[in-house]
Amino acid sequence: MSILKTNCLVAQSGGPTAVINASVYGVIEKASKNKTINKVLGSNYGLEGILNKNFFDFSKENPAEIKRLKYTPAAALGSCRYKLKSHLKNPETYEKIFSVFKEFNIQYFFYIGGNDSMDTVKKLSDYALETGFEIQIIGVPKTIDNDLVGTDHSPGYGTAAKYIATSVMEVARDGSVYNNENIHIIEVMGRHAGWLAAASALANKDVINAPDLIYLPEVTFNLNSFIEDLTKVYKKKKKVNIVVSEGIKDVNGNFVYANKSAGHDVFKHKQMGGVGDFLASYLKKEICDRVKVIELNVLQRASMHCVSKVDLDEAYFCGRDAVKFALAGETGKMVAIERINNHPYQSKIKLVPVNHVANHEKKVPICWINKRGNYIKQKAIDYILPLIQGKVDIPRENGLPRFAKLKYIL
Amino acid sequence: MSILKTNCLVAQSGGPTAVINASVYGVIEKASKNKTINKVLGSNYGLEGILNKNFFDFSKENPAEIKRLKYTPAAALGSCRYKLKSHLKNPETYEKIFSVFKEFNIQYFFYIGGNDSMDTVKKLSDYALETGFEIQIIGVPKTIDNDLVGTDHSPGYGTAAKYIATSVMEVARDGSVYNNENIHIIEVMGRHAGWLAAASALANKDVINAPDLIYLPEVTFNLNSFIEDLTKVYKKKKKVNIVVSEGIKDVNGNFVYANKSAGHDVFKHKQMGGVGDFLASYLKKEICDRVKVIELNVLQRASMHCVSKVDLDEAYFCGRDAVKFALAGETGKMVAIERINNHPYQSKIKLVPVNHVANHEKKVPICWINKRGNYIKQKAIDYILPLIQGKVDIPRENGLPRFAKLKYIL
Repeated sequence: MSILKTNCLVAQSGGPTAVINASVYGVIEKASKNKTINKVLGSNYGLEGILNKNFFDFSKENPAEIKRLKYTPAAALGSCRYKLKSHLKNPETYEKIFSVFKEFNIQYFFYIGGNDSMDTVKKLSDYALETGFEIQIIGVPKTIDNDLVGTDHSPGYGTAAKYIATSVMEVARDGSVYNNENIHIIEVMGRHAGWLAAASALANKDVINAPDLIYLPEVTFNLNSFIEDLTKVYKKKKKVNIVVSEGIKDVNGNFVYANKSAGHDVFKHKQMGGVGDFLASYLKKEICDRVKVIELNVLQRASMHCVSKVDLDEAYFCGRDAVKFALAGETGKMVAIERINNHPYQSKIKLVPVNHVANHEKKVPICWINKRGNYIKQKAIDYILPLIQGKVDIPRENGLPRFAKLKYIL
Repeated sequence: MSILKTNCLVAQSGGPTAVINASVYGVIEKASKNKTINKVLGSNYGLEGILNKNFFDFSKENPAEIKRLKYTPAAALGSCRYKLKSHLKNPETYEKIFSVFKEFNIQYFFYIGGNDSMDTVKKLSDYALETGFEIQIIGVPKTIDNDLVGTDHSPGYGTAAKYIATSVMEVARDGSVYNNENIHIIEVMGRHAGWLAAASALANKDVINAPDLIYLPEVTFNLNSFIEDLTKVYKKKKKVNIVVSEGIKDVNGNFVYANKSAGHDVFKHKQMGGVGDFLASYLKKEICDRVKVIELNVLQRASMHCVSKVDLDEAYFCGRDAVKFALAGETGKMVAIERINNHPYQSKIKLVPVNHVANHEKKVPICWINKRGNYIKQKAIDYILPLIQGKVDIPRENGLPRFAKLKYIL
């Protein structure tokens, strides 16, 4: 009796993280071992790769390079920011996608991404159920922003948090060396959720106690209160370290500073950046000449060299268990992390219905932010601290990281 | 028979590096073990601390914290940018400094710094010889810029080089994920010497082969050639990674882009920053909308979390051997690193007369830069590569670096 062998497809979507490829590795490793699965394919540039039938066959890659995927930052398969419309509005795209699934005998589809990607998982799995197309579609969470609901936290966040806290410690040390007054503004990512900014508070165990002030998008930003708070610290310490989310908003809900070009990305998110420079130019006039802006930029989402072991392991587990759940017949769900215990930290992987996740945003609870809106409380630190733990000896060659080198055979 | 016990003073000057405190640790450790030395003192804020008699006594610190100095970035004693004038122009300052030396019974003075600091070592040791003041004054090199002559390379450079190459690899991976055209400009430090920019070439062992173009201050920057070179890569690869020194200059020797405020520091160095943004705004108009500027800023000179073992060890050896040489009666000299062998890398510590060092600048040799002036040759890579080698398990606590916590008892 022959077993019907079917194929498995994995794709990545949205902004990259340091550990997103660890989830891919988890999928490949688990799926490759399963005898009912024939080929493990990867889609080049997420949904775009499906529409263009651009698939990699991982069996044609060197297994040593596949293993190195776990330690390779940024979406190695290519990512996309493809916003799938409803199938009423765009039936052809759905027909195209499912005809490709059929042509390539795709029984299992894993989509690794954030909020928008979980919306895609929801739409595609709903469509499959409605049309009676037999496929298991599972979402795998990733986002440095940590704004996905349904999961205690998202893979990618822990490493970004570790990088931010480490960098803030180092920047604050650097800023402490001269006998002068100075202000450092460290700008971190985060459009609507301040999880990344909040992580900077972990740095304040060092003697410099940086950052002094943290501004999150969850709190309406008021320039007068900001100047008042800053002046107080400045008078006392002469040196001030401020961490600010790119996405802080004014009382009308507008970004304090949208990008120079006021561009928008394809999801109509405003392209951020520049709030640090904006505040600096203000402070230079009002308070102090010596203001440095350090924008952590894409460095904070690609920092494999500063990876958190907890984060890396969980990203891998999420990919691995997505396959396990799919093989058990699950579909239309997202793999999620449940925190079992905090001291010592323990977590387990579970499944949540993807419609609980899609189009929601998890923000930093207001009760975790101080009343003045310029720092976070111990509760937030207790939540974040376990996620940055553990050191990983990533593969290195000649003193530098050795990332995976795939042949990408389509 | 009692031995006359005398004191030893160590001070830091100029911009900090990740490993400058490893040199301080070398001085403290070696000097503390010597029975002819009574106290090991540290000056708070370099020369300023001497003028103000603000000295730390290291014997009053917790020895475990002193050990952690080796793994603590940025000048832990405080630094300064004090430009000492000639003693003809400013005799009072010299009198003041030497009266403090006398009052505190300073027999050995170690000044850790760059170019300007070696000028100070030269002036003070000349003055001591002329006035018959018995003191041993030794310079200890440090600079991420690697522009000190007389030494094969300077402590601080290897770690900055490692951080830059690692970050360029990660940024390039991040920039590769979408199916689009984009340009990344990574701006690194370096006013007149392009050693830091050159180090980015080590990143190109990764499949992305970033950076594509490197611009150093040693080569006159021509905007037309730049656009031409960039267009060629852009057409071929769609994604371009450019590394640019903050200090690139035009045909008249002016900085391509001086700071927004066109400020100057106290040495009349122009305050840099902004050349990346300047080029980006140009490219956005001419070539491509998607241009990201990543300014590595002070992150590149404080990155203890990405330290090179070779660099850390050599910084420590420089401090340690400075004491050895001073005890042997040397003065007016700088500790220097001599490269004995490249495969395997071996170096030794030697002494060079400080007047060979002060007020000179070591630039990247023109014959190490390609003809087009937009990349470096293999010779430069052979020189830099050994300096970024080796991993160090720096002390950590709760997932973050654990830097030294001194009591700073004056």
